[in-house]
Amino acid sequence: MPSQLIDPTDLAFQLFDVADADRLTSLPRFKGQDRETYTAILDAARILAAEKFRNHYRLGDRNEPHLVDGKVVLPREIADGVRAFHEAGFASAHADEAFGGLQLPWTVVQAAFAHFQAANIATVAYPFLTIAAANLIDAHGAPDQKERYLPALFAGRFFGTMALSETQAGSSLSDIRTQAAPLEGNLYSIRGEKMWTSGGEHEMAENIVHMVLARTPGAPNGVKGLSLFIVPRYRMNEDGGVGASNDVVLAGLNHKMGYRGTVNTFLKFGESDGCIGELVGEPNRGLSYMFHMMNEARIGVGMGAGMLAYTGYMESLSYAQERRQGRPPGSKNPGSMQVSLLAHADIRRMLVLQKAIAEGCLSLALICARWVDDRRWADDEVKRARANLLLEIVTPVLKAWFSDAALRANEAAIQILGGYGYTRDFPVEQIYRDNRLNPIHEGTNGIQAIDLLGRKVSMQAGAAFTALLEEIETVCRQAGTGFPDQADALLQAAGKLKSVTSAHLGKAGGAGIDWALAPAQAYMDAMGGLVLAWIWLRQALAAERHPDPAFRTAKIETCRYVFTWELPKALLALDQIGGLKQERFPYPSADIFGGAPP
Amino acid sequence: MPSQLIDPTDLAFQLFDVADADRLTSLPRFKGQDRETYTAILDAARILAAEKFRNHYRLGDRNEPHLVDGKVVLPREIADGVRAFHEAGFASAHADEAFGGLQLPWTVVQAAFAHFQAANIATVAYPFLTIAAANLIDAHGAPDQKERYLPALFAGRFFGTMALSETQAGSSLSDIRTQAAPLEGNLYSIRGEKMWTSGGEHEMAENIVHMVLARTPGAPNGVKGLSLFIVPRYRMNEDGGVGASNDVVLAGLNHKMGYRGTVNTFLKFGESDGCIGELVGEPNRGLSYMFHMMNEARIGVGMGAGMLAYTGYMESLSYAQERRQGRPPGSKNPGSMQVSLLAHADIRRMLVLQKAIAEGCLSLALICARWVDDRRWADDEVKRARANLLLEIVTPVLKAWFSDAALRANEAAIQILGGYGYTRDFPVEQIYRDNRLNPIHEGTNGIQAIDLLGRKVSMQAGAAFTALLEEIETVCRQAGTGFPDQADALLQAAGKLKSVTSAHLGKAGGAGIDWALAPAQAYMDAMGGLVLAWIWLRQALAAERHPDPAFRTAKIETCRYVFTWELPKALLALDQIGGLKQERFPYPSADIFGGAPP
Repeated sequence: MPSQLIDPTDLAFQLFDVADADRLTSLPRFKGQDRETYTAILDAARILAAEKFRNHYRLGDRNEPHLVDGKVVLPREIADGVRAFHEAGFASAHADEAFGGLQLPWTVVQAAFAHFQAANIATVAYPFLTIAAANLIDAHGAPDQKERYLPALFAGRFFGTMALSETQAGSSLSDIRTQAAPLEGNLYSIRGEKMWTSGGEHEMAENIVHMVLARTPGAPNGVKGLSLFIVPRYRMNEDGGVGASNDVVLAGLNHKMGYRGTVNTFLKFGESDGCIGELVGEPNRGLSYMFHMMNEARIGVGMGAGMLAYTGYMESLSYAQERRQGRPPGSKNPGSMQVSLLAHADIRRMLVLQKAIAEGCLSLALICARWVDDRRWADDEVKRARANLLLEIVTPVLKAWFSDAALRANEAAIQILGGYGYTRDFPVEQIYRDNRLNPIHEGTNGIQAIDLLGRKVSMQAGAAFTALLEEIETVCRQAGTGFPDQADALLQAAGKLKSVTSAHLGKAGGAGIDWALAPAQAYMDAMGGLVLAWIWLRQALAAERHPDPAFRTAKIETCRYVFTWELPKALLALDQIGGLKQERFPYPSADIFGGAPP
Repeated sequence: MPSQLIDPTDLAFQLFDVADADRLTSLPRFKGQDRETYTAILDAARILAAEKFRNHYRLGDRNEPHLVDGKVVLPREIADGVRAFHEAGFASAHADEAFGGLQLPWTVVQAAFAHFQAANIATVAYPFLTIAAANLIDAHGAPDQKERYLPALFAGRFFGTMALSETQAGSSLSDIRTQAAPLEGNLYSIRGEKMWTSGGEHEMAENIVHMVLARTPGAPNGVKGLSLFIVPRYRMNEDGGVGASNDVVLAGLNHKMGYRGTVNTFLKFGESDGCIGELVGEPNRGLSYMFHMMNEARIGVGMGAGMLAYTGYMESLSYAQERRQGRPPGSKNPGSMQVSLLAHADIRRMLVLQKAIAEGCLSLALICARWVDDRRWADDEVKRARANLLLEIVTPVLKAWFSDAALRANEAAIQILGGYGYTRDFPVEQIYRDNRLNPIHEGTNGIQAIDLLGRKVSMQAGAAFTALLEEIETVCRQAGTGFPDQADALLQAAGKLKSVTSAHLGKAGGAGIDWALAPAQAYMDAMGGLVLAWIWLRQALAAERHPDPAFRTAKIETCRYVFTWELPKALLALDQIGGLKQERFPYPSADIFGGAPP
């Protein structure tokens, strides 16, 4: 068993040396904070995650949520972990002091969350959903809504959920049917069914605050007719206390491949016409409010996937260090002692692949978190706008490319353990099963790829794309002396990305938008590989100043691996996109699959 | 739910039009057989697989083997399925008429087995292991051993197992420690522990025949000191009946990620000095005997992985046909009806990827089976030797590259179903979990890659490699008219494979064998991609003569997909291998992972 689920030295390196969190302390929002504060937060998170989250990682998987007398039963350890998380102040660490928060940078909070995600991705989903609901109300709610809900959510007395999907509206939120009929003021009668709501019902909190997308009468079709409502499980009394049932009924539990500690529900709202919701903000703007939350959730998904890659890496590394098996091709004397798995080149290939993905993902996720801070708190408008652009274009890459890559990493972890990796005596198979959700939820990876190629690349006349290219070029310039080969390769790759993107989109006029977006996944492969190379060159640069020579060498060697074995795959994807002919659709038509119904 | 788990039209096409099974009927061994016989066998298999194997696919997963009063308990449906399989004569279909067999070609039997593998890979493991044990005794046992065991194994009264691995000897069979002390004649006292023995204990058969690798006193170190023993669970009486316990004790059950219907055991042999084994063949030749079986088992693993890819494909295709969700980029009117998933290009990408892998794997596996027949029954020595060479080099590719690819296919199946694919209400998550074993057992994929690059490519002065290149060139020549672009691309790729292989191995002298074999996985990626392209060009050629134009088009379009999107990955891997520098090891040293113990 590894002594750590993620390497604390690496986490500190990513936070301070790569994402440059120290600099945030000069901003008014973070006044009086310093590196010592931040380090203490990380330490506290690491200890709490090990004691109160990792302790029931397997237990939560084996004791799936189930109903007893109509109530959801979960292992007690889940509630204990969540309570400890709230009591330690992690849920409100980023929040305004006015709401009891510490006003810590999101970057620091995310770094702390890495420990919890690595320890128990299923249990941490509860406070994460609660934080997301709180952030949503904080950003778009009325003052009385904030007062009523924020302190209870931050304290963990109330839990939050996101109730978007319906059985007929998964990827297509445009087709949400839940209705909201006006009652008085901002109160509405809610009626409809929501599918896939995580944390939708349990007995761990005084109340559950569902953030529900629904349609008011006469609202436009599609996503432009969706409004956002706060729908508590129990109605709120005037005094802020919890009252009677609000007619939100559990209609079923979903039984999943993994992520089992997170109860996932099918809910019916207002079947007895007794469900009241409070409108948040203005009508018909629900989805844009939700997107505020969803974009941060997508960063969380990418980061969570990366932390599962990370802990899978640490597990398989620890196994490889301890396990002796076979002998390298060059020394086959069967009378000799068996060698460490580390002595086998193919084992090291699977380890460095995992290291590249896990540490690369952590690095990128913290840089994204840094942009979240910059977007809101940076001291000039240009910086804020630029951070926003970078987030827009990098978020789908972090969410999709890295969650796919993280699965590849987890597969390698299982493979390193061999037959043992396939048993439930070791955690790597569960890590894979938990991680398999990440390419699906918060917008499938296919949707992310279309978002990237179809919207983000060309948004604001290509401003986000240009900002990312500039970031890449900056790192290449800085790396020109220390890593000339890599700097040169990445610059060339960025140039190719630019020219292929422009040529491809140039054909869209003639070939049509469906043709142009068909190779979105290949485009994601290209962009993801480039971003991976960029983040690793950035790490290699930062590592040059690291005091520990072994740490430095490991970063630089992994960077070299990425440039030798991974970046070329991105270039191939660009070649493939560049080679597509307008007169032929990139993938076979529906006919070869029996045809689509009209 | 799909109406079929694999497409019977495709199976018939693969068997008759691609693997050319009709031709076998001209050989003396298969005299009097004809296409109608073979077709009837496939139909019988399809029906039996649906009724007696698929019926408990999920049940077997949910009711994992467990102990009650020291006895292994399995769902009754597993025993029923296995019994029906034996009663229908599938276990002995390939065997000599002298042993009650039908003397069917292995090619036809494998085609029939495709239905069982697709239906329930865990249950079919029992008869497959029994058949493998029988084949091993048939090939290397003494006449009295054949008489004693074969009829009982073929009839399913006895089940068989392969007991090779030990806790300290998984990939490294060289380190097997189980001891065999001579008693009298060919009887030995067996003492040791075996890990990962599938079907190692249960109550479904009168007896369980373990095929055990062990060392006799004074045997050489390593694999050259391993002998093969028949070790029954219960001793055999003189009259052929089953007698007292043979001191084979169940020490534990392994709890796996998937493949749960196959009980997997930790066994102790001779703890009370009461375990007697019968030597098979000569001492110290055990591993070479086992390899006979293992090579066929590896074809079975590749084929099984492919059939899981196939049924995952059929499941996700059926879902995609029925499920409506969203609208293509070019027609976003939210008032319109949602479209079939098939209308989305990225869904079709994931479908054609699965089709390419599933049908490609089936095709290749049946061609390998055909080579198994040719190797034994072809009417001249040259043909037999050539079939053997082709098997030697293609088997690791089928086992490893295709089992990895099959997992990619299953991941796509889950992704197409979205959230539903992540639930246990649909079979795709179980299919993935079952399939995850295939890259691990029967020699990990890392071992296969080293076998390919380190042994198979250069065996007999490159004769196997040359034979494969000739097969590829033959197909390219035949395809020159109908598919000139693909024929040309594949010819070029084959040329590149040849030159890169030779250049790379040429560097081994200077750089060392460990350096040369380090990129074995990249070499497997290259070879696998080429073989996939070859098998698809071969299918496209055969499909041109197919009576159903829709079937024809689907094959040709899938072939095109493979050449556009998959073959280039093989070329990239070759470029990467070609670009390796002798002075730098292809992957980082153990130092960056904390170093290997001495």
